Amino acid sequence: PGKKVLIVYAHQEPKSFNGSLLKIAVEELSKQGCSVTVSDLYAMHFEPRATRNDIVGHLHNSEAFNYGVETWEAYKRGGLSKDLIEEQKKVQEADLLIFQFPLFWFNMPAILKGWMDRVLVQGFAYDLSKAYDGGLLQGKLSLFSFTTGGSKEKYAIRGDIRYLLWPMQHGIMHFCGVKVLEPHICYAPENVSEEKRKEMLTAWTQRLKTLWKEEPIDCSPDWYFK
Amino acid sequence: PGKKVLIVYAHQEPKSFNGSLLKIAVEELSKQGCSVTVSDLYAMHFEPRATRNDIVGHLHNSEAFNYGVETWEAYKRGGLSKDLIEEQKKVQEADLLIFQFPLFWFNMPAILKGWMDRVLVQGFAYDLSKAYDGGLLQGKLSLFSFTTGGSKEKYAIRGDIRYLLWPMQHGIMHFCGVKVLEPHICYAPENVSEEKRKEMLTAWTQRLKTLWKEEPIDCSPDWYFK
Repeated sequence: PGKKVLIVYAHQEPKSFNGSLLKIAVEELSKQGCSVTVSDLYAMHFEPRATRNDIVGHLHNSEAFNYGVETWEAYKRGGLSKDLIEEQKKVQEADLLIFQFPLFWFNMPAILKGWMDRVLVQGFAYDLSKAYDGGLLQGKLSLFSFTTGGSKEKYAIRGDIRYLLWPMQHGIMHFCGVKVLEPHICYAPENVSEEKRKEMLTAWTQRLKTLWKEEPIDCSPDWYFK
Repeated sequence: PGKKVLIVYAHQEPKSFNGSLLKIAVEELSKQGCSVTVSDLYAMHFEPRATRNDIVGHLHNSEAFNYGVETWEAYKRGGLSKDLIEEQKKVQEADLLIFQFPLFWFNMPAILKGWMDRVLVQGFAYDLSKAYDGGLLQGKLSLFSFTTGGSKEKYAIRGDIRYLLWPMQHGIMHFCGVKVLEPHICYAPENVSEEKRKEMLTAWTQRLKTLWKEEPIDCSPDWYFK
């Protein structure tokens, strides 16, 4: 109650299963008295490419463009592009970040990866000696909620699905000091019965009801590769 | 000699260290008599977002947009957008795919992830029962060549750098049946001496000289998480 949630959502179709998961999260969290903001990346035509356009005005070094250095410098002088400043404000205010997306190639869709690349710049999300438990976004929680194309068994054949969570959960969120809740995975919603799909949606509603009582995972290699 | 190489390159600045690595690869492989094609993603303004624009003409199901289904159907009838057909032709002709990029957040930059998401569609790169060793791009080799921001020691603190290669090498290339050569990693070129940078460039040239004699890695969980 009173908590702020940012849902970063990456699906093209509101009628999709991801769309239903988003709707449930907005409704359930609002019902709890949380304030919920959604960044609907496809609807916003969110730009995933990291380019010179992200810096307003002069460059720190116009001889050789270095995206990391330029966005860091621009952040410090308030010179990032408007769309990035808006996303950073949403992140800053949020107690919980939920990422809702279909898994594409063992990973986030490019539009969501672009959100990570462009929004979480140095100075805002981390700094030279301020990473991992010292990351600049300490005190926040995150949750990766995604659907897969293949069944749970398909993923199990060649390794645990947790393997692919390492770059996202550890490499990004943990690096910024954000704690990570258990991922929420809906396996192959397109290939199961309508009944099973309904069960999956109910399970998400149920989980959200007690979400604030959950303990973050221990984001160490052990969790991923034990 | 006579081999075809596609380099998919994701850096904004030709004068960057990634730009130098690209130049070396083009020169050295051309000298060997290979035919080299470069997809310079930022220069091409390559679109990373997976949207309805990737399908020319009517949709298979316009009631609810499903990117995977629509691109699969469009591929079968030759109805993918022109930029995707061109990239697929380059992939089809290549014996070796080299991905040259700076690591962003334990992963490829979004623009390169978008290339994977949009170019490697079902029907072209894999099919229902044709994945991994049966993937549709069998007979090709791939190599991930990238730079990092942090030092080798920084990555070693919290796990092997190989952990983050699982989604890229196994989840994408291996899934499509493409064999994977050892990755080529240049650690923190921005933070080392000019002399060390030159050594790294020379090492890349040297490696390319005997590249065609290399054996692919064993792309199993053992290689990544041993």
